[in-house]
Amino acid sequence: MFNRIQREVNDIFNRGFDRTLRLAVTGLSRSGKTAFITSLVNQLLNINSQGNHHLALFEPARNNHIIGVKRVSQLDMKIPRFDYDNNLRDLQQTPPIWPQSTRGVSETRLAIRYYHRDGLMRHIKDTGTLYLDIFDYPGEWLLDLPLLDLNFQQWSQDLQRLNFGQRSILAQTWLAKVEQLDLSETADEDVLAQLAKEYTAYLHACKAEGLHFIQPGRFVLPGELDGAPALQFFPLLHLNETQWQELKNKASSKSYFSLLTKRYDYYRQHIVKDFYQDYFAHFDRQIILADCLTPLNHSRQAFNDMREGLQHLFQNFHYGKRTLLHRLFSPRIDKLMFVASKADHITSDQLPNLVSLMRQLVQEGGRHVAFEGIETEYSAIAAIRATKQVTVTQNGKQFKALQGIRTKDKQLVTLYPGSVPNKLPTEQFWQQQTFDFDQFEPQPLVDNELIPHLRMDAVLQFLLADKLR
Amino acid sequence: MFNRIQREVNDIFNRGFDRTLRLAVTGLSRSGKTAFITSLVNQLLNINSQGNHHLALFEPARNNHIIGVKRVSQLDMKIPRFDYDNNLRDLQQTPPIWPQSTRGVSETRLAIRYYHRDGLMRHIKDTGTLYLDIFDYPGEWLLDLPLLDLNFQQWSQDLQRLNFGQRSILAQTWLAKVEQLDLSETADEDVLAQLAKEYTAYLHACKAEGLHFIQPGRFVLPGELDGAPALQFFPLLHLNETQWQELKNKASSKSYFSLLTKRYDYYRQHIVKDFYQDYFAHFDRQIILADCLTPLNHSRQAFNDMREGLQHLFQNFHYGKRTLLHRLFSPRIDKLMFVASKADHITSDQLPNLVSLMRQLVQEGGRHVAFEGIETEYSAIAAIRATKQVTVTQNGKQFKALQGIRTKDKQLVTLYPGSVPNKLPTEQFWQQQTFDFDQFEPQPLVDNELIPHLRMDAVLQFLLADKLR
Repeated sequence: MFNRIQREVNDIFNRGFDRTLRLAVTGLSRSGKTAFITSLVNQLLNINSQGNHHLALFEPARNNHIIGVKRVSQLDMKIPRFDYDNNLRDLQQTPPIWPQSTRGVSETRLAIRYYHRDGLMRHIKDTGTLYLDIFDYPGEWLLDLPLLDLNFQQWSQDLQRLNFGQRSILAQTWLAKVEQLDLSETADEDVLAQLAKEYTAYLHACKAEGLHFIQPGRFVLPGELDGAPALQFFPLLHLNETQWQELKNKASSKSYFSLLTKRYDYYRQHIVKDFYQDYFAHFDRQIILADCLTPLNHSRQAFNDMREGLQHLFQNFHYGKRTLLHRLFSPRIDKLMFVASKADHITSDQLPNLVSLMRQLVQEGGRHVAFEGIETEYSAIAAIRATKQVTVTQNGKQFKALQGIRTKDKQLVTLYPGSVPNKLPTEQFWQQQTFDFDQFEPQPLVDNELIPHLRMDAVLQFLLADKLR
Repeated sequence: MFNRIQREVNDIFNRGFDRTLRLAVTGLSRSGKTAFITSLVNQLLNINSQGNHHLALFEPARNNHIIGVKRVSQLDMKIPRFDYDNNLRDLQQTPPIWPQSTRGVSETRLAIRYYHRDGLMRHIKDTGTLYLDIFDYPGEWLLDLPLLDLNFQQWSQDLQRLNFGQRSILAQTWLAKVEQLDLSETADEDVLAQLAKEYTAYLHACKAEGLHFIQPGRFVLPGELDGAPALQFFPLLHLNETQWQELKNKASSKSYFSLLTKRYDYYRQHIVKDFYQDYFAHFDRQIILADCLTPLNHSRQAFNDMREGLQHLFQNFHYGKRTLLHRLFSPRIDKLMFVASKADHITSDQLPNLVSLMRQLVQEGGRHVAFEGIETEYSAIAAIRATKQVTVTQNGKQFKALQGIRTKDKQLVTLYPGSVPNKLPTEQFWQQQTFDFDQFEPQPLVDNELIPHLRMDAVLQFLLADKLR
């Protein structure tokens, strides 16, 4: 009996000493991951004992429960460090410049020292430390999850359905060459390597056009796998059901068809699965960033493509324990936040519309599906605020506008960027093309130290407040 | 009894079906690894049943025992493929250009089909297949082996001894900053990251000056470890024995000193050791390439530095079973060849001198140490022959000269490049500076297909002939 109590007390005690929260940050490319993590670290490091006006919505900071935050050594020495200092230096320049986005994974670790406020802990120990591990990984890796449940034919046919409009134009050159290939012939590895290179070029072209649904995700961020056979395959978009069956029955084990199938399977088993096992399964909380405004500038297909991407990300967390993800990896994520970035590019009255739009993008038809055991939140933020909101009087009427240094001509402009649709845009919207969000340059830091932001404190409240009691 | 015989017959039978030879190719940077592998693959692929005049010294080819050679799929899908086709295309251009050198590891696999000529096999099976796996890896990785036997202080002191002349000039900026650091202070990871970056820049500067002894080897070829804490350390060159002891006794576990020590140990245990376990331990035969001519052009220090590098490589194989390598990894290498590359840059009468010079470079003082259980050979070759040898008559006297397209002015020149010292150059040699080897452009291929070479057939004879009986 004594032993049990002793053990429980010890457990609580130890938890108090060394609590760890592993936060994963991802998003489709150019969604602002680097800016988000830089700002998150900056806001926390600038917490002091005097009020913390920069984080009014983050209770532990506002109530001065946080003693101090510092960066400490990360645990995994093989993962590149998140380059906070370099990013901050970029923002401290005159004029400030945007930090460069990174490729692949990165990690950073903060130690947050705080006063215990409630529960048993209060009596045992006055202060505690929460170690916050922040992992940054490409959203494209999440988009690969469905592959685990699809065989080569199913995957090819899924992509076949997406191959229209802009995508099919970009795919033309590559696809024409694949169509000329006799798939039952003995494979020439160099031909495969060359066609895989062209497929990768097509995926890069899609990204450049603002399209986000990129599979396989590693093709555009290969790292050390560059040139490895594991990445030398591609989907077959031109086959009908009869041709698939014929190839499956008749193609020899050395044929193009068999080699493509084998490599796809290898990619699934060794690249996709490894990521989920080595990283994903150990995350506690997940942020998914999305820039919902830029695709509105691009085209209807860019917008729908982002929707496709976001919905695939969403499906990974969907329906709790019944998902593929849960069956295979039993992840322990208990909080999930979808964050619309660049919210400083619209006026504050448009924020509810932006959040509503993102919710619709993520959940088809706007259904508010709950996740089993995962608390989910939607928010619109600016990690690094580039504009100020001003009130303009025109013809005797007052309205809200934005002021900032416009990127394209480096001029200080005051403008009203228009209204954000609060649901998925209609056909009419795309015909009118009324949308034209400008890009802005970052503002100088407060006292050359603190990054101006919009609602990062609300993000911190959701992610961290319950762990700092 | 019957079972045993049956099993033995099966064993022999299976061996006949599927013999594999894993050949490792390495060398200090710019020693010609890419050219060597491209030529080796090319020579083998061009074996046919008509005489094989291009491989007169390779018995199985000359005697028409080889039926054919083809490239097949490599076994490890995560290792980049050696890009043979691209390299061949470079040589097939008009005028031909040198293939680009690669970074990191690569793999390629050949299937060599041959007639059995002797032994039991002849009666059981007429033909056999030898699978030849060729691995290419940076020589710098081999230079890291000694780290496994050195602690942080010993390693630092080893490098301290090399820090003179050109090296110490290049190290100045970095070293001055390290000297200002209070090593007993709590470490700032960003300071470490920055100093490691400067140390890496110093290593790159060394390479650019023709210096070859680069440690740690991963710093100049980081791959996915770029920016990871595992590569964020450096040696301490400015401490005396008393200072070392003081720091060891007094520095806290969070100090610069402790963090540097920890990271060095991590690098040894997780980066260096992994390479030897995952790759090296499985190699059957090893080629070590060295360009012994270019350093003669550079400087005495460049030459001595290459000697230092080669001798370290050599020591890895030295003394058979008593080496660190053997104790830790039990490698199975049974043949080792040191190959002096670019032998087409001197006249044929100088070849024995070049081989002799390399032997002296590898084995200090020219002692001919044998390896326990490893058959060792020294050779001078040109994997891709860039010059023709011609006889020139001048003042009634005949002498040998070279003819080729000189790289620096793209002119066809005939010249006598001078004689190669047959032993380590004396002080006098360096003062006279009589050495000036030119670089040449590659010659066009024979029938636009076959790469002209010098003594690649001797290399093949040593590496493969005994496996093709």
